[in-house]
Amino acid sequence: MTAEQPLILISNDDGYQAKGIQCLIDMIQDLGQIVVCAPDSARSGYACAFSATTPLTLTLRERRQNGVEIWSSNGTPVDCVKLALSQLLNRRPAMIIGGINHGENGSVNIHYSGTMGITLEGCMKYIPSVAFSLCDFREDADFEPMRPYVRSITNRVLRQGLPQGVCLNVNFPVGNAYKGVRLCRMAAGSWYNEVEHRYHPRGYDYYWMVGSYKNDEPDADDTDNWAVNNGYVAITPTRIDVTAYEAMDALNDLVQ
Amino acid sequence: MTAEQPLILISNDDGYQAKGIQCLIDMIQDLGQIVVCAPDSARSGYACAFSATTPLTLTLRERRQNGVEIWSSNGTPVDCVKLALSQLLNRRPAMIIGGINHGENGSVNIHYSGTMGITLEGCMKYIPSVAFSLCDFREDADFEPMRPYVRSITNRVLRQGLPQGVCLNVNFPVGNAYKGVRLCRMAAGSWYNEVEHRYHPRGYDYYWMVGSYKNDEPDADDTDNWAVNNGYVAITPTRIDVTAYEAMDALNDLVQ
Repeated sequence: MTAEQPLILISNDDGYQAKGIQCLIDMIQDLGQIVVCAPDSARSGYACAFSATTPLTLTLRERRQNGVEIWSSNGTPVDCVKLALSQLLNRRPAMIIGGINHGENGSVNIHYSGTMGITLEGCMKYIPSVAFSLCDFREDADFEPMRPYVRSITNRVLRQGLPQGVCLNVNFPVGNAYKGVRLCRMAAGSWYNEVEHRYHPRGYDYYWMVGSYKNDEPDADDTDNWAVNNGYVAITPTRIDVTAYEAMDALNDLVQ
Repeated sequence: MTAEQPLILISNDDGYQAKGIQCLIDMIQDLGQIVVCAPDSARSGYACAFSATTPLTLTLRERRQNGVEIWSSNGTPVDCVKLALSQLLNRRPAMIIGGINHGENGSVNIHYSGTMGITLEGCMKYIPSVAFSLCDFREDADFEPMRPYVRSITNRVLRQGLPQGVCLNVNFPVGNAYKGVRLCRMAAGSWYNEVEHRYHPRGYDYYWMVGSYKNDEPDADDTDNWAVNNGYVAITPTRIDVTAYEAMDALNDLVQ
């Protein structure tokens, strides 16, 4: 490793020990100097949350012979990015990668995803940022088919960057023979039956967040949901400017 | 209160006892049937996070003579919305309101804000949703000047709804004589010096998330930051479809 190699910061929301992030390190470790700063355990569903009131810690877990450094924190995925940028890295990263997530992050799940939190945080820092997710929640999911695609996308972003204010949400279908790669929009989708009511043995009510997801436009073949459901890798370019410009005219009476 | 009144669900990220949410109830309680479901204490910076692994509870805190119900939960702001929709409400709300937040939620803070988490969650459920925030973090901030504007916007949304997939992020400047209301885009802005390093008395390092905010386009007079800094109420129409459509062409080489 030399100082001339591009610096790549990696984080995730499944914890630094998850198979997905370890596979990601293995896939791209020759493409740059790799620093990992990831939660010490699973933080799924943390979105862009940061810790306003919790004292945070950083722990060096491993420093490999090839230069890869792995740190963990008790914070959220976004905390990990902020901590790494301010405390661990001595230069600006060329790229920030979230993942590889165990589970899909397409459609409205962009808003809940800690993996996308990492990527949006990088993008808000004007650093080219990408999230990789596999549509397989299992701990022992097989990430290997993703390797050439992850390497190619990473290489492309390192070489050319990304448009300012835009990051990439990349979702991979299950299986080992992708039909190709598609640039997609996020599908409109809904979660339903999201709360399961239980009775605690000590006699009070409690609730688990669960739920099922429904694609609300299943026939639209330009969405991320359609792509992964039909065997394609889905790349959804994602913006941090969430202004609804197209709604300004319809809302103009609000300023009367 | 009659069944014919529109049902309004209120939540916040400062906790159900905060002055901002209590003032909001007072301002709009005659406009509909009000149900509050809010965190049991402050959850600032929780974004769209939901609790994937925590058992959640609901506690009835107050049932007022005028029909207002106030519930709290140990969950996130988004959990509160999901819990209320599935467990507390016997019909679909006409509107969901987040706030009134103690502190600004303009620019990139949209992505971190629990108040906006509530509003985005409502919007993802196809329910007209609005976030109200005052640019004053103090516990005893004066929300009273907001009253006619909060009532007018709430009335307008109850009467006409909002475009599908669009919610409102409304920020109020400090002071009691607003110059008017402006429809805005979110400013491009950055947080810096976000981490403060401390030494614990027991001899280890820890970190607080802090930071300063900078408007990266201070001269642009069409942004939310500019509006509140110049005495205007800023309404930022916000979309849940975060696809960067305008970047598709520039990224087309990714599908080669």
